[in-house]
Amino acid sequence: MSDILNKLSRILEQRKQAEPDSSYVANLYSKGQDAILKKIGEEATETVMAAKDGQADKIIYEIADLWFHTMILLASQNLGPDDVLKELDRRFGISGIEEKASRKKEER
Amino acid sequence: MSDILNKLSRILEQRKQAEPDSSYVANLYSKGQDAILKKIGEEATETVMAAKDGQADKIIYEIADLWFHTMILLASQNLGPDDVLKELDRRFGISGIEEKASRKKEER
Amino acid sequence: MSDILNKLSRILEQRKQAEPDSSYVANLYSKGQDAILKKIGEEATETVMAAKDGQADKIIYEIADLWFHTMILLASQNLGPDDVLKELDRRFGISGIEEKASRKKEER
Amino acid sequence: MSDILNKLSRILEQRKQAEPDSSYVANLYSKGQDAILKKIGEEATETVMAAKDGQADKIIYEIADLWFHTMILLASQNLGPDDVLKELDRRFGISGIEEKASRKKEER
Repeated sequence: MSDILNKLSRILEQRKQAEPDSSYVANLYSKGQDAILKKIGEEATETVMAAKDGQADKIIYEIADLWFHTMILLASQNLGPDDVLKELDRRFGISGIEEKASRKKEER
Repeated sequence: MSDILNKLSRILEQRKQAEPDSSYVANLYSKGQDAILKKIGEEATETVMAAKDGQADKIIYEIADLWFHTMILLASQNLGPDDVLKELDRRFGISGIEEKASRKKEER
Repeated sequence: MSDILNKLSRILEQRKQAEPDSSYVANLYSKGQDAILKKIGEEATETVMAAKDGQADKIIYEIADLWFHTMILLASQNLGPDDVLKELDRRFGISGIEEKASRKKEER
Repeated sequence: MSDILNKLSRILEQRKQAEPDSSYVANLYSKGQDAILKKIGEEATETVMAAKDGQADKIIYEIADLWFHTMILLASQNLGPDDVLKELDRRFGISGIEEKASRKKEER
């Protein structure tokens, strides 16, 4: 599962050269950044609605949509998922916390 | 980079048992789903604002925040990032597209 | 200007009986509440984007869109703009504040 | 009810000269436009959540919050509710539609 974001990222990169009407993503690029941002706003709202409905399938579906459109934004700025993952790693000190967590386990 | 989502997912799982005031995440769980959803709405808005400002650092920062809070929502529903990655894989047929893409490369 | 909200409210009320394909509003009602809520999320995002662009015309246009769709939500719940105006009056104690404000003026 | 928006608008105008810590609105102005926009995003999300909960009181409360913060945005741009009402009047041709609507009534 773990390299899907990078695979998707490469696909999104390739779509930048594609004709606008060749795919959904190529079309979205051609409409410009505002069109991408509108989709991010939409998908966030739909994620909230899915959660209020309490339907796991819909929640997964809408979060996938939300991540997908944030990845299109990243690609449009020549950024990628690794930049976000690095930030998550840095901010939440994942490695460090993991160490502490596993140390705690050992101490038990 | 690729297993950061899974590491973060495990941390979020552990925080479910933690005292509300022991961490930001534990506190958010204790406030209930609406508090998580409000954060998702907020972070989506801040992502849009960062993109309008055109600052790469801020875009990365806000998308990290957005992904992070969607992962808290997933954890609160006993779901995880793999569910989202599987959906992205299924929907955008990444393996299939990749195959075509690599075949194209070979043909060049 | 001041009774436009009430006039619009009456129009939205009438549209509830109309055929789905007779107007935009009738169509939105027929799609159900989720469709109305998605529009509210969209228009809020577009308001934020218009403000970041700093274009007065666009800001007015998007806020009009946002108010319009919240009024459709109100109508769908058999509520109206007066309920919102009463809440604004109650919460921000407009009459009271006005009195203080005019008293201050007289004292100058 | 109908002139509450204008009264509120005048109050918001006065708050521009107030000390940042003298009121919520004065404080929000002092934080700058991004703080106002974040609130608009938040209140839109909370409106959606209130509607999903199906609680009339909460819907009214959140829409009041949403209108209030859009009015702060308008004031910060030296715009006001009348600009939005004029746009609603223009766009949805309220006078015109009203005429048709009342004509229809007479014909019945």
